[in-house]
Amino acid sequence: MNLELNELSLSIIEEVVESPDHFRIIAHESAGTGLLLDFGVEAEGSLEAGQVLSTVCMAGLATVNLQPQLLGKWQWPHVVVETDYPVAACLYSQYAGWQLSSGKFHAMGSGPMRAAAGVEPLFDKLWYKEEADHVVGILETAMLPPESIFEEISAKTGVEPADITLLIAPTSSVAGNYQVAARSVETAMHKLLELGFDVHRIRSGFGSAPLPPVAANDLQGIGRTNDAILYGSTVTLLMTGDDASIAEILPQVPSKSSSVFGKTFLEIFEAAGRDFYKIDKLLFSPAQVIVQNVDTGRVHVAGEPHVPLVLKSFGLVAE
Amino acid sequence: MNLELNELSLSIIEEVVESPDHFRIIAHESAGTGLLLDFGVEAEGSLEAGQVLSTVCMAGLATVNLQPQLLGKWQWPHVVVETDYPVAACLYSQYAGWQLSSGKFHAMGSGPMRAAAGVEPLFDKLWYKEEADHVVGILETAMLPPESIFEEISAKTGVEPADITLLIAPTSSVAGNYQVAARSVETAMHKLLELGFDVHRIRSGFGSAPLPPVAANDLQGIGRTNDAILYGSTVTLLMTGDDASIAEILPQVPSKSSSVFGKTFLEIFEAAGRDFYKIDKLLFSPAQVIVQNVDTGRVHVAGEPHVPLVLKSFGLVAE
Amino acid sequence: MNLELNELSLSIIEEVVESPDHFRIIAHESAGTGLLLDFGVEAEGSLEAGQVLSTVCMAGLATVNLQPQLLGKWQWPHVVVETDYPVAACLYSQYAGWQLSSGKFHAMGSGPMRAAAGVEPLFDKLWYKEEADHVVGILETAMLPPESIFEEISAKTGVEPADITLLIAPTSSVAGNYQVAARSVETAMHKLLELGFDVHRIRSGFGSAPLPPVAANDLQGIGRTNDAILYGSTVTLLMTGDDASIAEILPQVPSKSSSVFGKTFLEIFEAAGRDFYKIDKLLFSPAQVIVQNVDTGRVHVAGEPHVPLVLKSFGLVAE
Repeated sequence: MNLELNELSLSIIEEVVESPDHFRIIAHESAGTGLLLDFGVEAEGSLEAGQVLSTVCMAGLATVNLQPQLLGKWQWPHVVVETDYPVAACLYSQYAGWQLSSGKFHAMGSGPMRAAAGVEPLFDKLWYKEEADHVVGILETAMLPPESIFEEISAKTGVEPADITLLIAPTSSVAGNYQVAARSVETAMHKLLELGFDVHRIRSGFGSAPLPPVAANDLQGIGRTNDAILYGSTVTLLMTGDDASIAEILPQVPSKSSSVFGKTFLEIFEAAGRDFYKIDKLLFSPAQVIVQNVDTGRVHVAGEPHVPLVLKSFGLVAE
Repeated sequence: MNLELNELSLSIIEEVVESPDHFRIIAHESAGTGLLLDFGVEAEGSLEAGQVLSTVCMAGLATVNLQPQLLGKWQWPHVVVETDYPVAACLYSQYAGWQLSSGKFHAMGSGPMRAAAGVEPLFDKLWYKEEADHVVGILETAMLPPESIFEEISAKTGVEPADITLLIAPTSSVAGNYQVAARSVETAMHKLLELGFDVHRIRSGFGSAPLPPVAANDLQGIGRTNDAILYGSTVTLLMTGDDASIAEILPQVPSKSSSVFGKTFLEIFEAAGRDFYKIDKLLFSPAQVIVQNVDTGRVHVAGEPHVPLVLKSFGLVAE
Repeated sequence: MNLELNELSLSIIEEVVESPDHFRIIAHESAGTGLLLDFGVEAEGSLEAGQVLSTVCMAGLATVNLQPQLLGKWQWPHVVVETDYPVAACLYSQYAGWQLSSGKFHAMGSGPMRAAAGVEPLFDKLWYKEEADHVVGILETAMLPPESIFEEISAKTGVEPADITLLIAPTSSVAGNYQVAARSVETAMHKLLELGFDVHRIRSGFGSAPLPPVAANDLQGIGRTNDAILYGSTVTLLMTGDDASIAEILPQVPSKSSSVFGKTFLEIFEAAGRDFYKIDKLLFSPAQVIVQNVDTGRVHVAGEPHVPLVLKSFGLVAE
């Protein structure tokens, strides 16, 4: 089975690179490496750039847009995602599972290039690897990647550096924030996978998360983007199979299942000595998850948004 | 006047049949009959398939999509419909007014083939019949139709069986549920027609209904889809003409006008001895209808959603 | 810098004029003048026509659609706007800054033709003027314009009358109401400009306003469209630069900053002896404005919707 996720992403990119100025992105082409699309490092980016970045990150197998919803008493733009390919779009492609580094450069790598590399344990569990002539990756980072990053990706995917397209955005940028808020369904899918659930039973996903305001710095940015998901996102999943297996683990899926639920992400991060690896793994999840079993008609619900924490994180309470 | 509703539907289908796997639908082509597109009998279907099925059912004269809205305290996907052709899209095409049966096979028929047959009293009242070389129908049924169904449609429409395209989905399937929830405006239009209102005065419609969770069986499915409309749907209609005529009948339009309002559809159905024909006809309506008179500026309002019944029907209250 | 706003608008119009009946608009072509597109004078218009009119009015640099949101206890269609070009789309094009009159004909002119004329003080402040071979304007008026209006626009823009495309809609018409409700972001942008803020610092805008019901007459129509914005609209703006400058003026931006806030627009209009120029200039603003500073991470909030006044203006309270 080859879903051609890299091909699908590439077909979206081809339209975008025809008018980078329109999206306020910058296209860098140099000998030796492939196309580098800057969505927010030196480039300013835009809401539309964020929508494109999110869509490419899901290999085009999802629709993504901005809709107003109440956040407390405020109408606030929310990123709404719909996909009939939650495993392919969210786990094979969107999940930021590839850590890339070279010298001072560090980035979380996502996008369909991961499926062509197939080196993460996730791909062994899910039995997927993709042949590709050209790969597409999204790097969440505040620096443009050096040539050595193209080489590392080339080594893992078997694709020439010239045939690698990378889209870059810092966490705290307009497009970068948008693509994080587009991870509501992905976060639920990954948590289910971690809990040992057979994620292929999830057939469709629909989610929403408030678009975080761009932060002053990376630390605040990490706080806001995490809080948008942890305390602001709601997800609906359509599932097949038995109910007992989901009933058993669903209470562990939403962020509320974590012992540290109820504090802003930055408070939790500080309490953990700013060490991600000391934070309760159960925390990284949507605020609310509704699972509809299309075989049995059962609807399973867990978690709920915690709006005051979102408002606090977004800097809205003092007003 | 020929609105070419069958042509419009066919142009949408042509795109879909190029990649049935993408929509998780199955295309059956056989000698003697036309194209049979399975959206949920043996096929799994998908949310996107539901959107296509709904759009074809309205002859492409409406936009349909999924948006999150609060259902009680839960963010829940709602099917939102917008049309500037409420009579053509909803009554000539979408209304499921053609009962088809052959042996053990039974189905409610909708879609523009109805306008080419023109045998329902509705078409006499509204003075519409369509010439077509090729017709398109949607059948709500849990079985694939036998060849004799193509022949029956051929006999009524004068179109060769080979030129008949049928889209099939059970009530209780992902795409089937979606297309029912897309009937908010249609239900209001049909109720107005039944009450003797000149529906040509309705110029545009906008509606929303919660997407019912796929049910365990047809009985539960009938309950949930009906409750989504009866207790969860809201409709806005733009109207021309005088106010007195609408003021007189509008109180009878929403489901609240029925004496059985306030029980889930299954409770009502059981009380009627599972006989549809014993259920109060006034029941089949949206929960809320707002009519804006574009000639006089008057806004008429009737009914209101009954969220607790929707939650009960969807299996959300015990959580 | 030439943003080719007129070209962008024209490319949208070219698709629309291929099927005016579909949009319920009327295309008038006559020797001596350019194309006249009637969206609501003799033509009926439609919701889709309103969406096109709004998009053309923003030179295609925005997405516009209808989404249901709660207005008090009612689900009500709201016009949602998103743009990464708030200065170009809203101020160079959408703002109705050009008063046109000839004999008994009076109209507020908007659209990209304004940028080609460049005679308003706004264009001096913002240093923009556009060369164009063909210009596009939107006139809010209840009469079709005489030939002399084409001549006046020709004189100001240097474009031949035959190369001028005008789109016409009365305030109180389906498409006319839609395009006013699409002015949530524009109203915020113009208020900021009036208050002396450097509007180029606003990089993206997102807004929502309830679609007013078409009114009985122009007076009621002016009331409803103004109340939709003043009391019903909410806007989010993404900004660069310092916080002090926005903190100082933001309290003056929403309608609440006006001393007459809290009465329907018609009450205010009557109190001012039906003289627009005696109404507090601070009134013309969205109900709520949220500004996110993408440089500093600060979120600034001012104002709030006043739903009871919207309901009263829309004729919903007596129900």
